[in-house]
Amino acid sequence: MRDIFDAELTQLGEDLVAMSRRVERAVTDAGVALMTADLALAESVIADDLGIDEMERDLDERCILLLAQQQPVATDLRIVVSALRMSSTLERMGDLARHVAQVARGRYPHHAVPEPLSATFAQMHDAAVRVARRTTTLLENRDIALAGSIEADDDLLDDLHEDTFTALLGGTWTGTPQQTVDVTLLGRYYERFGDHAVSVARRVTYLVTGTLTDDLTASA
Amino acid sequence: MRDIFDAELTQLGEDLVAMSRRVERAVTDAGVALMTADLALAESVIADDLGIDEMERDLDERCILLLAQQQPVATDLRIVVSALRMSSTLERMGDLARHVAQVARGRYPHHAVPEPLSATFAQMHDAAVRVARRTTTLLENRDIALAGSIEADDDLLDDLHEDTFTALLGGTWTGTPQQTVDVTLLGRYYERFGDHAVSVARRVTYLVTGTLTDDLTASA
Repeated sequence: MRDIFDAELTQLGEDLVAMSRRVERAVTDAGVALMTADLALAESVIADDLGIDEMERDLDERCILLLAQQQPVATDLRIVVSALRMSSTLERMGDLARHVAQVARGRYPHHAVPEPLSATFAQMHDAAVRVARRTTTLLENRDIALAGSIEADDDLLDDLHEDTFTALLGGTWTGTPQQTVDVTLLGRYYERFGDHAVSVARRVTYLVTGTLTDDLTASA
Repeated sequence: MRDIFDAELTQLGEDLVAMSRRVERAVTDAGVALMTADLALAESVIADDLGIDEMERDLDERCILLLAQQQPVATDLRIVVSALRMSSTLERMGDLARHVAQVARGRYPHHAVPEPLSATFAQMHDAAVRVARRTTTLLENRDIALAGSIEADDDLLDDLHEDTFTALLGGTWTGTPQQTVDVTLLGRYYERFGDHAVSVARRVTYLVTGTLTDDLTASA
């Protein structure tokens, strides 16, 4: 019985890794589509998000079955409940990548991000891709040192998000209202993406150490 | 044993209602603070959000205890897992009300919403308040007819959100970049608020009827 349960928990962990890997690809492709005005790539991110949503549903059903059939307690129970939470967070990260792709698609054949902010968004993209990659690795190997670097990149994303406001509101902005809207929303998507990754990182850390590093809900 | 469990499920339901009622007050006060540039009211919404976060944590701990001690299956299990999900959604709705209040606070003593859009945001406020009130009532009495009116108001919020873009991008917009940013973000906060309420409504409907009315995760 315990063997079956362990196998099921392992499977649950692998599903989360697979889902995270798919989010990683989504945010990578979405950022490239945004920066290069690549319509086909944007379309593929948007289409692929349905697959991420489906993974969430499957994972949730698996968790509920596991709760019903195995009646886990203590740490096992927390693992299953955390998986439910993390699948929902990863699904949201996928949505945010899709939102970025939708902005890229909406502005095609033009670039959504105006020239003065392209370096800032290139940095946001890099940070989001690192965050996504490390989230996958953290889910895979539970090396909680990675949680620290995810938090650091989340701080960087917050700073870069602030930079976009400074650019928009500093008095020298000459963008169109459409550009102002796009920059505002894109900045928020990236900033939220980082928040969600931190929430996953904290949940994994909690499972490994039994200690809440910070208020989990604040960034969930 | 069953009696204790039923009492605990009832308590869980009451906690969700209490949480929803607090979200209802938050979104009501946030909208009033926004429309009347009321700093004290904005501050109170921001401070009160910590209380909503705390309710989520308490509710989650209660759910995990219930899973561990009562080992529910079938419908009971779905009720507890749904409560976990709904508390997280209500917490996000509280965050969104706080975000609206933060915009109001940031622009004080000015009004964040420029005159040409004040009627649109008054309508968004009214729709969001109705949505919040009906969410509370739905959680209280499980009258799933309310789910339909929540969905209708969510559609209205989507339309009003579209109206803000039409105003910003129609070529006659003369607002400052700050106003463009504020309108973009406020529109998104209200639109998301509606989405989350729909997600709660669909979960309650599912618990009552056993039928998924639509893709739950799409709007979660």
